[in-house]
Amino acid sequence: MSLAKKIRVAVNGYGVIGKRVADAVVRQDDMELAGVADISVDWRPRVAMQRGFRLFGATKAHAETMRNAGLDITGSLDDLLGASDLVVDCTPKRIAAVNVDIYRQRGIKFIVQGGEKHEVTGHSFVAEASYASALNRVSTRVVSCNTTSIVRTLTVLKHAGLLHRARGTLLRRATDPWESHLGGIMNTLVPEPEIPSHQGPDAQSVDPELDVITMAVKVPETLAHLHYWSVQLTRPAAREEVLDAFSASSRIALIRVDAGLTALNTVKELMADLGRPNDNLYEVALWSDMLKVEGDELFYAYMVDNQAIVIPETIDAIRALTGTVSAEESIAKTDATLGIGLLTETLGNR
Amino acid sequence: MSLAKKIRVAVNGYGVIGKRVADAVVRQDDMELAGVADISVDWRPRVAMQRGFRLFGATKAHAETMRNAGLDITGSLDDLLGASDLVVDCTPKRIAAVNVDIYRQRGIKFIVQGGEKHEVTGHSFVAEASYASALNRVSTRVVSCNTTSIVRTLTVLKHAGLLHRARGTLLRRATDPWESHLGGIMNTLVPEPEIPSHQGPDAQSVDPELDVITMAVKVPETLAHLHYWSVQLTRPAAREEVLDAFSASSRIALIRVDAGLTALNTVKELMADLGRPNDNLYEVALWSDMLKVEGDELFYAYMVDNQAIVIPETIDAIRALTGTVSAEESIAKTDATLGIGLLTETLGNR
Repeated sequence: MSLAKKIRVAVNGYGVIGKRVADAVVRQDDMELAGVADISVDWRPRVAMQRGFRLFGATKAHAETMRNAGLDITGSLDDLLGASDLVVDCTPKRIAAVNVDIYRQRGIKFIVQGGEKHEVTGHSFVAEASYASALNRVSTRVVSCNTTSIVRTLTVLKHAGLLHRARGTLLRRATDPWESHLGGIMNTLVPEPEIPSHQGPDAQSVDPELDVITMAVKVPETLAHLHYWSVQLTRPAAREEVLDAFSASSRIALIRVDAGLTALNTVKELMADLGRPNDNLYEVALWSDMLKVEGDELFYAYMVDNQAIVIPETIDAIRALTGTVSAEESIAKTDATLGIGLLTETLGNR
Repeated sequence: MSLAKKIRVAVNGYGVIGKRVADAVVRQDDMELAGVADISVDWRPRVAMQRGFRLFGATKAHAETMRNAGLDITGSLDDLLGASDLVVDCTPKRIAAVNVDIYRQRGIKFIVQGGEKHEVTGHSFVAEASYASALNRVSTRVVSCNTTSIVRTLTVLKHAGLLHRARGTLLRRATDPWESHLGGIMNTLVPEPEIPSHQGPDAQSVDPELDVITMAVKVPETLAHLHYWSVQLTRPAAREEVLDAFSASSRIALIRVDAGLTALNTVKELMADLGRPNDNLYEVALWSDMLKVEGDELFYAYMVDNQAIVIPETIDAIRALTGTVSAEESIAKTDATLGIGLLTETLGNR
């Protein structure tokens, strides 16, 4: 690999997702971070500069403003795209939709995030479910955090021949930690008015065969989402058989209440103690000792770090679009570089 | 009824439930509040005094201490029981278990709350499901707030011939508002380690025929519990048929997101504006415009005011044990005196 040409990756938007994608890209020996583009002049791009990333303004005007604010700016997004093989769009919803036209005009491969509709790229990505169909495409959409977790967990149950249908209740964190000073809900619960919520259909954009229905509610905390699932199996199964199925995915970490992981905050603290950047939990953290099988019904709960879970998928999506390696090779490489798997090594899992 | 002898009711424990039971008892023209017993010398019994309730110490020693603190104390629990036909025990868990022996020795009818086990009384009470079997018994247990809501909602589906089985996820408020200064969880979610959680089996203590499984999680807010349900019906049904079934119970209030009732806090504010004591929500508040039927599956969410929902049940349980009237008569009377039904009148419901 070291002799092969590295994939030059541009990251457009250096926010919650963009900064994590950039960090992950520089850990890959088959990728090179061409640079990051943004519009901000506050502390955020200064961190990118300090990390040695090449900084670009989203437009020539932004580049100028950022330069005037004392930032070391290499050029504009246009220049960045010219020096890249692929761009990962991590800008807010409405901005990304406009950017896609720019990427198409330039003929550069691109990845958008789960805030965009499936139709924007015509392909929705979760590594363990749709890597093969993304191979050498022009673009794909890495689905949202909740949808990623749903596809990961239901795909392994499907592959084990166990999945009939799944019904989930999603507790959604109120806002991201870094912007919680800008406002969020306090001391209340806010149901999403639509039942079913959109995550079920979104999971079907990755795998139309999944029979999945979700309900969602916003809760007053910022750490992560929490899912409760009630799954109808194809047949009665043993608890161990289900745990085996979940263990088949490196991106599902089995955790235990009786190891002291009793709540969202303790899991986040463990990520910090493992030395992960931004305390990232890349895995679906599923409580193995809570998991229950009753006849042909399965019940379980898991935690989703909405800021981190899509990062390994994004890295795999880059490899899929550029057609360099197989799904298995990419997933193994991404896992190794991000420390995925260490969690199970550290804790055991059953 | 005005010529008949009134039921003399003692309330033992003047806390979150006891004070609401006392308030509700004085609104009944067939009941008389014989008095309330407690051990506290802080602001709480002073409110009882100010409301003109006769105050008793839990023991002679407590009576003395309370007298010394300047409270107007009529006597001890023993005296109160001597002047009562029935006692509603609203003391904390471990205390109630001890009190039951006292009640039995005195041969006085008694009601315990949902914190006690079914075996303590051998009968578990929800007015619309088990009033008849409580008639003229010595004792019953008014089940917990969550269990009450489960039995109310599933009973009407059962009576409509629609209920096959129900699977629910319960978001439990962290602590009661009045004692939130004593501590509660903040900015995290704490799953109950056991799946299934205890509320499903507890509902079966009222109606063993219910096929119900629950999962539960503690959330960082104090206002109320929130339930999400996924119900397998006996057959495909129309949405209106399900709403008709829920409407058959006066103790299920259909509310609407599009009437601005978008979250727990707005519903509580409505209770305050309706002039209800302590902003009590006695009903299961079920969002009619969120409710969804897909084939033979039903999905809905509702709010449970854990401090208030058992109050009408307790009033009905008093009438059941004393054998004065039928379930229908008691429920109608309780509803009228507590303003149950006004919610639907105020808002419409579909």
